[in-house]
Amino acid sequence: MSKEKIFFDNASTTRVDDRVFEEMKPYFKKKYGNPSSLHDFGDMVRKALDKAREQAASLIGANKEEIYFTSCGTESNNFALWGLARAYKDRGTHIISSSIEHLSIINPLKEFEKEGWKVSLVPADEYGSVNPEDVRKKITRDTALVSIMHANNEVGTIQRIKEISNITKENNILFHSDGAAAAGIIPVDVSKLGVDSYSFTSQQIYGPKGAAALYVKKGIRIKPLLLGGIQESGRRAGTENVPAIAGFGKACGIAENEMDKNNKYISGLRDNLIKGISDKIKNVKLNGHPAKRTPGNVHISFEFIEGESILLMLNFEGIAAASGSSCTSQALKSSHVLLSMGLSPTMAQGSILFSLGKYNTLKEVDRVLAVLPSIIDRLRKMSPLYKE
Amino acid sequence: MSKEKIFFDNASTTRVDDRVFEEMKPYFKKKYGNPSSLHDFGDMVRKALDKAREQAASLIGANKEEIYFTSCGTESNNFALWGLARAYKDRGTHIISSSIEHLSIINPLKEFEKEGWKVSLVPADEYGSVNPEDVRKKITRDTALVSIMHANNEVGTIQRIKEISNITKENNILFHSDGAAAAGIIPVDVSKLGVDSYSFTSQQIYGPKGAAALYVKKGIRIKPLLLGGIQESGRRAGTENVPAIAGFGKACGIAENEMDKNNKYISGLRDNLIKGISDKIKNVKLNGHPAKRTPGNVHISFEFIEGESILLMLNFEGIAAASGSSCTSQALKSSHVLLSMGLSPTMAQGSILFSLGKYNTLKEVDRVLAVLPSIIDRLRKMSPLYKE
Repeated sequence: MSKEKIFFDNASTTRVDDRVFEEMKPYFKKKYGNPSSLHDFGDMVRKALDKAREQAASLIGANKEEIYFTSCGTESNNFALWGLARAYKDRGTHIISSSIEHLSIINPLKEFEKEGWKVSLVPADEYGSVNPEDVRKKITRDTALVSIMHANNEVGTIQRIKEISNITKENNILFHSDGAAAAGIIPVDVSKLGVDSYSFTSQQIYGPKGAAALYVKKGIRIKPLLLGGIQESGRRAGTENVPAIAGFGKACGIAENEMDKNNKYISGLRDNLIKGISDKIKNVKLNGHPAKRTPGNVHISFEFIEGESILLMLNFEGIAAASGSSCTSQALKSSHVLLSMGLSPTMAQGSILFSLGKYNTLKEVDRVLAVLPSIIDRLRKMSPLYKE
Repeated sequence: MSKEKIFFDNASTTRVDDRVFEEMKPYFKKKYGNPSSLHDFGDMVRKALDKAREQAASLIGANKEEIYFTSCGTESNNFALWGLARAYKDRGTHIISSSIEHLSIINPLKEFEKEGWKVSLVPADEYGSVNPEDVRKKITRDTALVSIMHANNEVGTIQRIKEISNITKENNILFHSDGAAAAGIIPVDVSKLGVDSYSFTSQQIYGPKGAAALYVKKGIRIKPLLLGGIQESGRRAGTENVPAIAGFGKACGIAENEMDKNNKYISGLRDNLIKGISDKIKNVKLNGHPAKRTPGNVHISFEFIEGESILLMLNFEGIAAASGSSCTSQALKSSHVLLSMGLSPTMAQGSILFSLGKYNTLKEVDRVLAVLPSIIDRLRKMSPLYKE
C-alpha cells in the first residue's frame, strides 16, 4: 500500500502556492531581463520588483521604500545586525539579544564578540517568553542595538515586541526583530510593533526559497552587507532574484488576504493534534506558550526517548516532522532554544516539532495520531531510561 | 507592425533554457522540502543539491566538495574577498586587484581600505588586458591576496590568469578570480588556471537568477560571510535556494556539453555584427582585445554621441543592448572599466555593449545593422561635437 506523504514540517519551509508559482513563471523564459537594464526587458522586471515591494510592505504595514529584498532570512538577519551596528557604532558597541534567537542572529553575535563588541543575551522563561524587563536591565550607556525575535521558530512563542520597543525608544536604542516565523503567519504591523528593522521571508509562507526582505524604518541608517552595484537603493548589491521576489510578493499578498481563514483552519488542526497526543500518550509536554503561540506549532517533548528516533520512524510512515530548527538538525545537537527554556537535555533531545500549514488536513492529523502512540511505545520499550 | 523584440544584452542576464526550467519545476510544488531536514522531503532536495554541485564542479574542473552555492555573483565575490582576507590576515593586509574589476570586487575593496587594509589596483592596457608583471610589481611582504577577473564583463577581454597564478604561487599569495563572465562561456579549468578561489554564476549561462557559486580550493581556509546554520559545510548559512541551484547545475551541464557548438555559432554572429558596424558606420572603435575576448561581446564606441541616447533609440526599435555593466547603468556614470583602459570620457560615454547569446539569430544581427546606421546618423546630426 502506497501511503500519501504527510508534510508536518512547515516551519522549515512550505510548498509553493499554485498562484505564487503562476506569478513567477513568466520571469524565467519571457520576462528574463535584468532589472537594472535601461530597456524594455529591464522595465518589465522592474515593474515586477515594484509590485512585490508593495505587497511585501503591505503585509507588515510598511512603505515600499522601507523594504530591501535579500536572498534568505539568514541574509536579512545578518544584514540587519551588521548594517545597523556598524552604522550606529558611535552610539556604542553593546548589543542585547536573547538566548532563543535563530542561529542567523546568535552566530553573527558571536562574531561581533570576537571583534570586541559586547553582547548580552537575555533568557527566556519556561514558555519561551522573553521578559521585556530583562532587556531593560541589560541596558548600559554603551548599548546601541537590541535584537529580539517576533515569534520563535521552534516552540512558536510570540514575544512582547511592543513592550520591548517602548523600552528601546526610551533609551534611544535601535531595535531589530527577526520576523521569519511571524510575518505572513500572524498579523504584523511594524509601526505598531515599534521596531526599527524587521526580517521576513518567503519560504515559510508558501513562497519560493531564494527571497526574503529586511524592513528598515525610514530615516534609519544601515550599512550594506553585500557591496557592488546600486541595486535596492544601494543597500543590497547583486542582481535581484526577480522570479523569487515576484513569488514572494504574491505570497505576501495571499498571506495578508487569507490569514484569518488560514489561521482558524490551521489552529483547529493544531488543537486536534495536541489534544490527540495528550490523550493517547503519557509523559508528554507541550513546549512553548499555551496561548501566545503561532497557529501551526505543535512542539512536544516525549520523555525517555530520542527525537531523532521518533523522526526516523515517522518518516518510515511517510510523515515529515522536525526536531528543532532545520538549520541545526544535521548537527544532531540539542536545541539551544529548549535548553535555555530550562528543559533538561534528555527532554530537549526527546522533542518533536510538528508544524502545520494550510495544505494539511484533519485526515493527516488522524493518520499521525494513529501511528504515533505505537512509535512512542516501541521506542520507550527499548529505552533504558523508561520504566512503566 | 509589431516587431519581435531583440535581446542583445546577454552579458547582463540570459533567458532561462527550457531544459533548465524543466529541471527546476519539481522543486516548487512537489519536492519543496528543506535540504537540512531529516526526512524524505529533505532527502529529495539534498540529492538535487548534490547533483547540481557535481555539475557546477565539472564545468570548472573542480571537485564537488570545493563548490559553495551562493545567491549571486556579487555574493560570491564579496564572500571570497571577505572570507579569504580575514582567514589569512596573518599573512598580511595588502590586497592587489585591477582597475577593471566588477563593482562587486571594487566596492568591497574600498570598504577594506576604510578598515585599514591597503589595496593596490593594477591598470589595464588599451585592450582591457592586465599585465601579469604589473601584478608582480605591486607585491609587498604584506600582500595576502590577489583578485583579478577571468573575463571582463564589459569589454570581454580574457585575462592571463595562469601567468598571474604563477606569480602568486611563487610568492605564497592567495589568488581569487571572478569568473562570472567566463565560466560556462569559455572553457575553464581551475586547476590549470591555478586559482585558489573562483566565482561563477547562473544568470549569464541560461540558468536562473538567484544562484551562483564560489569555488574554494581544497585546503584553503575561508571565513563565512553569512553566519547562521551549517548549510554548505558551514561556509554559507541560509536555506539553499534549491530550485535555482538545481537550474544552475543543469545550466552548467548544458554549457559544458554545448560550449563548442554555441561558441562557433555566437562568435559567427558577433563577427557579422562587428563587420557590419565597421562597414556601415564611420568613427567607431571596437573596445576590448581583438582576439582574446569572450565569444558574444561586441563593445563599440561611437564617437561624438551618447550611449544612453543610442540605447533609447535602439529600445524604441525593440532592440535591447547595454552601455556598460547593468549594475551601474542606472547611475548613468561613465564606465570605470573604459576610463581605466584609457578611453576619453566622451568615447566612454558613447559606448554600447551588444552581448550576443545562443538564442540570437543572424536575422536579428541584420535587423540591428539595418537600423543602427540611421540612429547613429540622426544622433550625430544633433551632436554639437560632430562635424562631417
